[in-house]
Amino acid sequence: MRIAIDAMGGDHAPQATVEGALLAAAEWPETTIVLVGDNARIEPLLQGRKPANVEIVHASEVIEAEDEPVKAVRRKKDASMVVAGRMLKERAVDGMISAGNTGALMTTGLLVVGRMKGIERPALAPMLPSMTEGGVLALDLGANMDATPEQLVQYAIMGSIYRSKVHGIQQPKVGLLNVGTEAMKGNELTKAAYPLLEQAPVHFIGNVESRDVLNKPCDVLVCDGFAGNIMLKSLEGAASVIFSALKTEFTRTWYTKIAAAVVKKGLGNFRKKMDYNEHGAAPLLGVDGLMLKSHGSSSALAVKNAVRQARIAVQSDLIGGIRAEISNGSERS
Amino acid sequence: MRIAIDAMGGDHAPQATVEGALLAAAEWPETTIVLVGDNARIEPLLQGRKPANVEIVHASEVIEAEDEPVKAVRRKKDASMVVAGRMLKERAVDGMISAGNTGALMTTGLLVVGRMKGIERPALAPMLPSMTEGGVLALDLGANMDATPEQLVQYAIMGSIYRSKVHGIQQPKVGLLNVGTEAMKGNELTKAAYPLLEQAPVHFIGNVESRDVLNKPCDVLVCDGFAGNIMLKSLEGAASVIFSALKTEFTRTWYTKIAAAVVKKGLGNFRKKMDYNEHGAAPLLGVDGLMLKSHGSSSALAVKNAVRQARIAVQSDLIGGIRAEISNGSERS
Repeated sequence: MRIAIDAMGGDHAPQATVEGALLAAAEWPETTIVLVGDNARIEPLLQGRKPANVEIVHASEVIEAEDEPVKAVRRKKDASMVVAGRMLKERAVDGMISAGNTGALMTTGLLVVGRMKGIERPALAPMLPSMTEGGVLALDLGANMDATPEQLVQYAIMGSIYRSKVHGIQQPKVGLLNVGTEAMKGNELTKAAYPLLEQAPVHFIGNVESRDVLNKPCDVLVCDGFAGNIMLKSLEGAASVIFSALKTEFTRTWYTKIAAAVVKKGLGNFRKKMDYNEHGAAPLLGVDGLMLKSHGSSSALAVKNAVRQARIAVQSDLIGGIRAEISNGSERS
Repeated sequence: MRIAIDAMGGDHAPQATVEGALLAAAEWPETTIVLVGDNARIEPLLQGRKPANVEIVHASEVIEAEDEPVKAVRRKKDASMVVAGRMLKERAVDGMISAGNTGALMTTGLLVVGRMKGIERPALAPMLPSMTEGGVLALDLGANMDATPEQLVQYAIMGSIYRSKVHGIQQPKVGLLNVGTEAMKGNELTKAAYPLLEQAPVHFIGNVESRDVLNKPCDVLVCDGFAGNIMLKSLEGAASVIFSALKTEFTRTWYTKIAAAVVKKGLGNFRKKMDYNEHGAAPLLGVDGLMLKSHGSSSALAVKNAVRQARIAVQSDLIGGIRAEISNGSERS
């Protein structure tokens, strides 16, 4: 198996990507890690440690975090991300991982790797945090702002296959993000999507309210990119405001500081649980190849974990599974 | 001035509404409070204390929390909420307050009181909590799930006039709920609304992300009812999960319990700040009369505070102000 890593993508690249590649290469000797990026910057980081299952493919350009996605992907034809995308397209690798510019990665998915036949829109599918084990795979979280009811159904199918193949969940429960749990609640989009989801080849459990999302009401949550983003950023915003207020409260006097010390570890663990960046890389589902978006601030360990995720996805033939289900659907309709 | 209170609306009605009416009548002797509801249940609660500025208007029916709004308003013609709405429509009162079924109140606004001329859709406009003083008036939060760009502009105008007339804010800052701050971010709705808001007679400051809402980035936040509801319930959901995790952490051992006792008051105050139910009644803007939705769990004090809000709105001629601005707009276009 061959996994490409966009060595130049992410806040701590190429240091973290190279270190992560080495960790992965050591753990999985039968997997070849292809580091795509600036040779002159990657080589010194290896410090002579180049295992047989690590390759470097030189790419002279880098897409920066602040680059306008479509323009960057079109113009920087030799950017590490674009080169990795091209290798995926040409089947020179079985999957690719990038911690770089999210918009550019989605554009690379569309313009370089290409959509899977039958898929209208690819979707970005991160795991949301949850208080209990497991979490919720939410899609779409930002690849497309608007969605049609039919696209929501495709998201449900792709998300279900991902949860089942990669996370081993049999019959993943699919929820529709909505403003109430009754069937006829919502806007025109969700009202039209509801009956289609009932008939789709997924285990649809109905509407899910955003206030319940952290309690893991389902395994897969479908929504349009706009609503999903509003939800995710509201959850983050509330958590950030509350934790900073806690900090203020705890540092007010010497005895509140002692109180803080007593509960510090428990709260730290909890905060980590709330941080969706801790919950792995997000697949870009619906492109014709395995693409994983690792968080921008990914450490070497996060990069290694993304390789683990990619390995499971390849071994379980995630892409083949989605392709088969989607073409089945096209035949059905 | 005459303010009608739906005496039968809310979890603690008619006890809380009657007590609240008495508190308001005592504080503002020149304001007549009209209690609309079941005489046989209201009279005993007065226990002979019936000031000259409290009137009872009998209504034989009650709309319950679980009633289907449109059906209930259409069928229960003698419901307290509907009778109060009719009095408002006939100008027998200057405003009405209800802590009852939100959907039914919005329906009463549309079907009994009626839309203001020139307004496409009325909007429910609660205050969101914020960490600093003041808060954010958000609309629409649930009167209409879908909105057009033009409706968002009307929300912006109505919200601005409310903040200026009722809260005394000169040039209230108006933000558009969105997934990023750049002008071209968002879905089709927000992209179309942005340039219209730039030209509207409001102080438009651009897009606002949901993660920043609790930090009071603007005075008025406009959004469609679906996105607004997703945001509000996500904020609530995150707060509720975090506070219950805190509780678990704090009750784990005897020494964490002591730690909890030390910070209890500070956290309690903070939690109160986060609770949007503490932030007053929500106006239903765009109906042809002053309607305030008090929270379902309103206490007598909350009812009295809603009367205070209604008095300011009537004294500042909120409704006349909106009417004038909207008909100006119709002339402009």
